[in-house]
Amino acid sequence: MSVADLSYLLGMLGTIAFAVTAVLAVIPKGIDVFGACVMGIITAIGGGTIRDVILDETIFWSLDLNYIWVGLVSSVIAFYGNRLMSRKYVYTLMLYLDGLGASLFVIQGAEKTLELDFAMPLGPVLLGVTTAIGGGLTRDVLVGNTNLLMKKELYAVPLAIGATLYLGLINQFHDHGVIIGILCALITFAIRAAAIYWKLRVPNWMLLKAK
Amino acid sequence: MSVADLSYLLGMLGTIAFAVTAVLAVIPKGIDVFGACVMGIITAIGGGTIRDVILDETIFWSLDLNYIWVGLVSSVIAFYGNRLMSRKYVYTLMLYLDGLGASLFVIQGAEKTLELDFAMPLGPVLLGVTTAIGGGLTRDVLVGNTNLLMKKELYAVPLAIGATLYLGLINQFHDHGVIIGILCALITFAIRAAAIYWKLRVPNWMLLKAK
Amino acid sequence: MSVADLSYLLGMLGTIAFAVTAVLAVIPKGIDVFGACVMGIITAIGGGTIRDVILDETIFWSLDLNYIWVGLVSSVIAFYGNRLMSRKYVYTLMLYLDGLGASLFVIQGAEKTLELDFAMPLGPVLLGVTTAIGGGLTRDVLVGNTNLLMKKELYAVPLAIGATLYLGLINQFHDHGVIIGILCALITFAIRAAAIYWKLRVPNWMLLKAK
Repeated sequence: MSVADLSYLLGMLGTIAFAVTAVLAVIPKGIDVFGACVMGIITAIGGGTIRDVILDETIFWSLDLNYIWVGLVSSVIAFYGNRLMSRKYVYTLMLYLDGLGASLFVIQGAEKTLELDFAMPLGPVLLGVTTAIGGGLTRDVLVGNTNLLMKKELYAVPLAIGATLYLGLINQFHDHGVIIGILCALITFAIRAAAIYWKLRVPNWMLLKAK
Repeated sequence: MSVADLSYLLGMLGTIAFAVTAVLAVIPKGIDVFGACVMGIITAIGGGTIRDVILDETIFWSLDLNYIWVGLVSSVIAFYGNRLMSRKYVYTLMLYLDGLGASLFVIQGAEKTLELDFAMPLGPVLLGVTTAIGGGLTRDVLVGNTNLLMKKELYAVPLAIGATLYLGLINQFHDHGVIIGILCALITFAIRAAAIYWKLRVPNWMLLKAK
Repeated sequence: MSVADLSYLLGMLGTIAFAVTAVLAVIPKGIDVFGACVMGIITAIGGGTIRDVILDETIFWSLDLNYIWVGLVSSVIAFYGNRLMSRKYVYTLMLYLDGLGASLFVIQGAEKTLELDFAMPLGPVLLGVTTAIGGGLTRDVLVGNTNLLMKKELYAVPLAIGATLYLGLINQFHDHGVIIGILCALITFAIRAAAIYWKLRVPNWMLLKAK
């Protein structure tokens, strides 16, 4: 499998995860299936779209509409299928799926930015994190939800760690891009999953006491 | 009249409609005339700007500042002229004008995307709808209003139908672009106007019952 | 000092001012240091990023990561250093610093747009103001604060005056770009500072009476 294949696979899995979690997140707001699909697609492709606009690259989904189709079908299935799941189960599943999607997208975004040699060395970290959180931020703004940057959950920090690790490892072992990519996505997801499971919060020294 | 002329006319009429309805929508928030003009212009040109950024085309209004001037003058007139209208009348007028603007913009956006052969066949529908609702979504986010995607009104669905119809008809009769464009904008507006007049809502099968 | 040097200096000072004020503005929301840095950086580079996307220029910070580094360091210092300041003092300082940042950015944005001869004559004013307020608007949307366009403060109007003045003076005396740039930034800041000090509001004829 080539680096391009890896990037494609990560992107498609992330698309499914993000579309599904977005739909599950907006259903309690009483949205209809059309609105839910728009939110699912925006969440899935929003981060990558912002990244490509900043990179001044052709928007990725215009070259391969599978991203839109997969986002659309995932959204519809999540919308009507959500009745089968209990509230509690849905919420937990959503958290892990969302963490998986973000871990896949952060590496994919970092990889694309690295390949274009854009704004080295900070660029891949900044645009990797943008790819991972841009769609969710846009959704939260449109839905009127509090977004992840305002919460004390460990969400964006693991992503920044994962992208930095990827950059460091690629710099050392540039012949093993695929393995390093998979490894870093897994490590990022492991940190995020641990944060969900043990309800880890941002440590106190990173917070200011309320006055 | 050429396709380019049609596109121009649709765009200018849509600009007036969107600027006016935006200003009428933000006045109750206690905004000043400068803020109202910014909101009017953003609503009028926001969707087309997002479309052109995604298409990687020169932003349309930079090539023809009439869009800005028309948006500005419409905004000022709507701001000071709004005293002449009663509350009820303003609201109804606003709904129809907004529907007209959206119907014009969705076809104009689809036409531009089609001409560039961008992301066929989904591209023209996606970017047509983006052209029509992008400015209003941006305004609602800036003003702090609930946006159309979160409501149960039939708003975006008629637009998606209109753009899809346009694409299908152009595919069959590509020599009659102008007539098809006008026809599809009218059909889109007719569906939207019917939805306003008879207070049509999204059908039940498109909604999930609140648990 | 060349025009390019001036533009760079204005940009860097504005970056510091915007990052610091953004962090001071989001601390009361209980944000952690990572989120504060993201907000600081977005506020500092957001307006210029939107400007460069519309201009279809390479995003300025990708060519010079000092903007990001300076934004990051300023954000961290503002986050942990804010304990040293009293509430009242912080708030006033924030207002003036923010006004300074906006005055610097509006001229820098107008200058860049003018140099590219983009959408003359309105372009430099529109994109100057966009450079100055785009980052703050994005931050307010992400944080859930009421943004400056919805308030009755004299904020955006001085910026529009400053950019228009700059354009008019450059048109007359195009050999003195640096002096005119500094002068217009100072005048813009003076108007804004007067508005803060004397608590000037938008005049009544620019407002509609609430019905």
